[in-house]
Amino acid sequence: MKAVTLLSGGLDSTTVTAMAVRRHGASNVLALSVDYGQRHQRELSSAKQIAERLKIHHRILHLPSHLFRGADSTLINPTLETPHKTYRQLELDLGVSPTYVPFRNAILISMASAIALIEEAEEVWIGTHAEDARNWAYPDCTPEFNGAMSNAIYVGTYMKVRLVTPLQWMMKKDVVRQAYKVDTPVELTWSCYEGGTVACGKCPTCCERLAAFNAVGYVDPIPYIDREFWKQA
Amino acid sequence: MKAVTLLSGGLDSTTVTAMAVRRHGASNVLALSVDYGQRHQRELSSAKQIAERLKIHHRILHLPSHLFRGADSTLINPTLETPHKTYRQLELDLGVSPTYVPFRNAILISMASAIALIEEAEEVWIGTHAEDARNWAYPDCTPEFNGAMSNAIYVGTYMKVRLVTPLQWMMKKDVVRQAYKVDTPVELTWSCYEGGTVACGKCPTCCERLAAFNAVGYVDPIPYIDREFWKQA
Repeated sequence: MKAVTLLSGGLDSTTVTAMAVRRHGASNVLALSVDYGQRHQRELSSAKQIAERLKIHHRILHLPSHLFRGADSTLINPTLETPHKTYRQLELDLGVSPTYVPFRNAILISMASAIALIEEAEEVWIGTHAEDARNWAYPDCTPEFNGAMSNAIYVGTYMKVRLVTPLQWMMKKDVVRQAYKVDTPVELTWSCYEGGTVACGKCPTCCERLAAFNAVGYVDPIPYIDREFWKQA
Repeated sequence: MKAVTLLSGGLDSTTVTAMAVRRHGASNVLALSVDYGQRHQRELSSAKQIAERLKIHHRILHLPSHLFRGADSTLINPTLETPHKTYRQLELDLGVSPTYVPFRNAILISMASAIALIEEAEEVWIGTHAEDARNWAYPDCTPEFNGAMSNAIYVGTYMKVRLVTPLQWMMKKDVVRQAYKVDTPVELTWSCYEGGTVACGKCPTCCERLAAFNAVGYVDPIPYIDREFWKQA
């Protein structure tokens, strides 16, 4: 194996997975998806379909359900409602994003690095981007975090594994362009934070995605309940 | 909560847990023990007893058994024998320690940091020391790794959580001295890598521990099958 990619099934992680396939060939890529109790388990079946389409290895890790016990993230606490707002509105209203899962990315990256070591892969890829990092909405998506984590991985794996973060300086619209450049199966991706079967169009990540497609003049190929909400928000 | 400590049940982690209790008081310390499929599950019951003795909160996390699938660490692969050698001999024979679990500490530290955020604790304590780090036997115990990980944690938790590594410049004999200084319940600890009910005295960690007690002129209060093996090794 050459690369382990963290594949949630969303647009960003699918794009970096497609990039890893271009660089190393499908047979050298292992995609890792993680069930951490997210309400949008739907993304895991998207991840599976994407891995099949890309003809790569795929593994789903099930984290203990008690790991994030007591966390007040709307992604994992079923008693909280998913906000129907853009990220910009969330930042204005609340500061910290209510969808932030405590230090989740460090856990995912660490596990992917362990698996990379075992599989003798030299790279771990993650698709966090600059819009995730903006205003510290997700501190574990910032270039500062990635840089520190890169060092920890390299040192902590006998200098055998490196973290690869090719989207970290891109805004979401640049990610959309990049996705099509590398033949990402965009139609199979799932970004919505709601637990439904069709994307809501109203949660922060749906709004961000629809706005990004709009900004570059593309039509998002996946179905939405509401494709216009983000414009009023 | 003020501090989350990683408590394996061994001497080092019990010592830092006792230090955290001194600093913050027992009611403000949560000890986290992790079942990652180690053959010496015995350490988890030691951790439980230690937490009871120290009157602190305690939680055991069970990681998915497939996480380290394929790893060739003697700690988790039941088809491999625990070496009966000192660390010095292992280094000479093999280079990398056969007891290294791939990037385990990063996973443990990341999970502890997530729980610290949820519990509003400002510190995560880990008891890795300089003898772990020597010759890169355990790269995820080195000060270089701790430094990078500290940065990742601080940045990735909205600057709310810090990593505390008070033993990182101590050799094992210094840890023994420190243990007694802070009233660590040494007699309840379990270090042995074998899965038995009495410490073997022959695995690398038993040898290291017995040699360290000997170096400072103390008698290790736990029972061993063989207390002399390390001297010949």
